[in-house]
Amino acid sequence: MRLGIIGGGQLGAMLAEAAHPLGVATRILDPEPAVCTARAAEVVYAEHDDPKALSGLTDWAQALTYEFENVPLEAVQGRPGVWPPPEALRIAQDRLHEKDFFTEHGVDTAPFAQVSRVQDVQEALAKVGTPALLKTRRLGYDGKGQALVHTAEEGRQAFEELGGVPCILEGLVDFRRELSVIAVRSADGDVRVYPVAENHHEGGILRWSITPAPDLKDRQAEAESIVVRLLEALEYVGVLTVELFDVDGPLLANEMAPRVHNSGHQTIEGAVTSQFENHVRAVLGLPLGSVEVLQPVGMINLIGREPPLEALLAIDGVSVHRYVKEPRPGRKLGHVTVQGADRVTVEHRLEQVQALVREHS
Amino acid sequence: MRLGIIGGGQLGAMLAEAAHPLGVATRILDPEPAVCTARAAEVVYAEHDDPKALSGLTDWAQALTYEFENVPLEAVQGRPGVWPPPEALRIAQDRLHEKDFFTEHGVDTAPFAQVSRVQDVQEALAKVGTPALLKTRRLGYDGKGQALVHTAEEGRQAFEELGGVPCILEGLVDFRRELSVIAVRSADGDVRVYPVAENHHEGGILRWSITPAPDLKDRQAEAESIVVRLLEALEYVGVLTVELFDVDGPLLANEMAPRVHNSGHQTIEGAVTSQFENHVRAVLGLPLGSVEVLQPVGMINLIGREPPLEALLAIDGVSVHRYVKEPRPGRKLGHVTVQGADRVTVEHRLEQVQALVREHS
Repeated sequence: MRLGIIGGGQLGAMLAEAAHPLGVATRILDPEPAVCTARAAEVVYAEHDDPKALSGLTDWAQALTYEFENVPLEAVQGRPGVWPPPEALRIAQDRLHEKDFFTEHGVDTAPFAQVSRVQDVQEALAKVGTPALLKTRRLGYDGKGQALVHTAEEGRQAFEELGGVPCILEGLVDFRRELSVIAVRSADGDVRVYPVAENHHEGGILRWSITPAPDLKDRQAEAESIVVRLLEALEYVGVLTVELFDVDGPLLANEMAPRVHNSGHQTIEGAVTSQFENHVRAVLGLPLGSVEVLQPVGMINLIGREPPLEALLAIDGVSVHRYVKEPRPGRKLGHVTVQGADRVTVEHRLEQVQALVREHS
Repeated sequence: MRLGIIGGGQLGAMLAEAAHPLGVATRILDPEPAVCTARAAEVVYAEHDDPKALSGLTDWAQALTYEFENVPLEAVQGRPGVWPPPEALRIAQDRLHEKDFFTEHGVDTAPFAQVSRVQDVQEALAKVGTPALLKTRRLGYDGKGQALVHTAEEGRQAFEELGGVPCILEGLVDFRRELSVIAVRSADGDVRVYPVAENHHEGGILRWSITPAPDLKDRQAEAESIVVRLLEALEYVGVLTVELFDVDGPLLANEMAPRVHNSGHQTIEGAVTSQFENHVRAVLGLPLGSVEVLQPVGMINLIGREPPLEALLAIDGVSVHRYVKEPRPGRKLGHVTVQGADRVTVEHRLEQVQALVREHS
């Protein structure tokens, strides 16, 4: 079997690494893949929307998937064998479409309003209240392309600074914590939902995560109900991630990612079947694997700089994933998974890793 | 970091797959690697004892290791940075040296005697009793190069049929079961021992295995004591496997493999750190990882033919590793790992996999 993957970051590498034990050959389309990707798969060196390269990949592979949500839509729309469905990509690429999609399917969100022109700012603020986040509808990630807004004047200024492109204004949610739910749906409609993860961001970038999130109670069932609704609505195939705010009242959906997700990296070691393998299984029409997580598992991103490998590996229960990238401030260079018999042990080990990360940043 | 691996079978592929997340680049030396290997690592296409290729690999890598025990000794002896130590390879390549080595270190074995000439058969039989196994001292594996012998006449005939090469005669042990213990020793002398596995062979080939072996009681401590003694004696670095017979009285050592082992494949999914990652960590001078096995885990080899992937993956708790080899009777084409909450569940799932294997063989 053969799988084509659009995008040459670490997610592509980990997809390829999950595919190979199944006997699935992989080709990754990217003009400039990460070193870890070039080691993990055959690379087709071309732009993500290069028509010739895409056709070649379609002819070669049984299925095409993608590892980032800013894949040019025209590269995949109407192309046979692309999973997750391009419609999910279309929605996820636009924060307004995404919020509308959540709302249509009875999934709560923060209050939101569109801001297409600078004149829309005042009305939008009146609708969502202050403080609020002004975000570009497209192409924002890891906290980029957004601004915190308290007044109409600030809002207008932010809109100009964001380039005057179509934006969405979102009410700032006073959440207890951030969660994410990762689920996978197979071609024949089987759905599996991983235990919900609790995520900790700084400066808009995921720093660390723990699965299952502590004290979930009925939040697991609620998160499952949300993600299942979205999967069914899209006749989705593959892994879908929904980021959630845990607040008083029902969970709020923040955004969705039609792909494997950073907060699911801990499923490589922590779950019976990783998000990567289940994504590969799904898009190739194979049966899904168990999403059971046997004991608590944490994940820390290595951002900007990496502590010495020796020091990381000396911590018990640790697995290290280096992406072999040039260090750069704010860049994800790798991640560390931390296993332990109980939450206290995992949190203690996460702290040990974090101390190393701080020491070397 | 860079690791050279001599040998292009599935063990080499799985070593490379374990190395990459650590940011370790791999090159594999083999004239004709398995497809899974060529996908997992850069390949140096040359014979295992090609001097130029070996020197190139030594210059390129921080460490050289090997994935099969019939590596030509002259390829590694005296070469810097080769782990496990070539001395372990020298011993493991010769069944007589191996048995002598066990005996020297107080490790029990089946009775044995050397047969260098056809004239030695009678005396050897007198020493070890009948029935006995006549085995070539070198190059036997998976049940090849051996014959069951009841009389001196049979022994002489077997000796001729084995080519008149130096042999060892071993008393046939009436064992309860076959076990294996896999351990790893780091460059600074840290030792970790995986839970002992119970192994089931047919026709001299490992068919399936379960970790931890049921009803181990003090056999775990006894096996640990054996393998630790051997590791220390060799100032070993890397993974060492010892195959054991469980009999009335002390465990008997059957043979050792100075490498990762088929009965440890289940550590990929089943242990916090797999035998492959721990081998890579050890030979590169890195700290070892936890060898804890959280729940029972089984492994079945796919030999000669493979059941359809879809059917295998439909069984709960299953992970499939295909080596992408041309099917051939007796050839290991892949393996299946089976996880479950308890031994009964794992055994039930192993039976489901075995039923598929039988159906498609």
